[in-house]
Amino acid sequence: METMQTDVGPETLSLVLFSGTDDKLNAATVLVSGAAALGRPVNVFLQYWALEAFQRDRIDKDHGASPEAGPEGQELLRKGRETPGYQHWAETLRQAKGLGEVNIQACALSMDLFGITRDDLDPVADGVEGVVSFLISAEGGQILFI
Amino acid sequence: METMQTDVGPETLSLVLFSGTDDKLNAATVLVSGAAALGRPVNVFLQYWALEAFQRDRIDKDHGASPEAGPEGQELLRKGRETPGYQHWAETLRQAKGLGEVNIQACALSMDLFGITRDDLDPVADGVEGVVSFLISAEGGQILFI
Amino acid sequence: METMQTDVGPETLSLVLFSGTDDKLNAATVLVSGAAALGRPVNVFLQYWALEAFQRDRIDKDHGASPEAGPEGQELLRKGRETPGYQHWAETLRQAKGLGEVNIQACALSMDLFGITRDDLDPVADGVEGVVSFLISAEGGQILFI
Repeated sequence: METMQTDVGPETLSLVLFSGTDDKLNAATVLVSGAAALGRPVNVFLQYWALEAFQRDRIDKDHGASPEAGPEGQELLRKGRETPGYQHWAETLRQAKGLGEVNIQACALSMDLFGITRDDLDPVADGVEGVVSFLISAEGGQILFI
Repeated sequence: METMQTDVGPETLSLVLFSGTDDKLNAATVLVSGAAALGRPVNVFLQYWALEAFQRDRIDKDHGASPEAGPEGQELLRKGRETPGYQHWAETLRQAKGLGEVNIQACALSMDLFGITRDDLDPVADGVEGVVSFLISAEGGQILFI
Repeated sequence: METMQTDVGPETLSLVLFSGTDDKLNAATVLVSGAAALGRPVNVFLQYWALEAFQRDRIDKDHGASPEAGPEGQELLRKGRETPGYQHWAETLRQAKGLGEVNIQACALSMDLFGITRDDLDPVADGVEGVVSFLISAEGGQILFI
């Protein structure tokens, strides 16, 4: 198959969010915001523990840290939340949607597994889709699993 | 260096599987199946705890969940396994190899570290290779670390 | 927007290092060394627990294994360290910088969160930068989150 590459708009950044702890979701949000600020389209696909964390009754709460953080790491994150100027990742993510093209989709399979319905999700999530749709939207860009 | 991009077949998806828990291996298998269904070549490279999970004496068993799942999350996955229509990720991965071009290679360095031999691996693994070979097969496509 | 793709040097490999345990840092270092050996430019961005591990007073010590390793996995890694020919990942990373173009940057936001200064970092880290600079350096190449 031979084609000539003709289009090149800004490169898409796609993130599969799997983990539901605040340290990883902070790190992910920083990447989303940075890419949006650069004018890059961003796709986010929510699976498993990240999907669980995006439910409207808990998204703005604390979600702990990765188990590797240990008690000291947990304490460090807790102190970080008391710093003046601190902002929860969920709020940063909402603002990133104002900055650029950030599309957040819940994984249909994970929705079923967790018994989560569309109404359970925080409105920062734009919808529910299957993995094939996600992969198509990610095509030709960069993709991360977090 | 100036070259003109001429070939463009379907984009390769390459996954470094590092974790050996069922939630991550489920998530990885969903991505592999989706990519194979889209006609994309898929490369899988097995390291550490994922490699350990691909041994023939244990691949089809339970491998627990990520530590962040906690007891509730573990219970949720256990219930998922009792759902009608449930299929183990190992079986889904075998079927994905029938759908498309899915090549699964064990990392030679991890094999040595764990004292795992080719005969210990489940036949779903196609072989053993070094990281340079894996990186060459992944060139020009998307790559994920799970 | 239509442009013709003209340059194509070797593809950049960019790694966001988030985890600070030896198994993940080993796996990451193997990828860095492999890419450097292939003549590919490598960018490393240190966040959270990986950043913490790159401090000069601890980089060359033991950093444990991912919690999923369990006691058996921890013991396996401990034994690996006693094998003749064993080399710590930090030393392998220093050598990889001699092999090729490997640039290691600490995430400015994580530096602030952890109260880590430039002087606290091991000299294997080349500097401190923001996420936008990292994303620009990663553009057009492959990117992994570890």
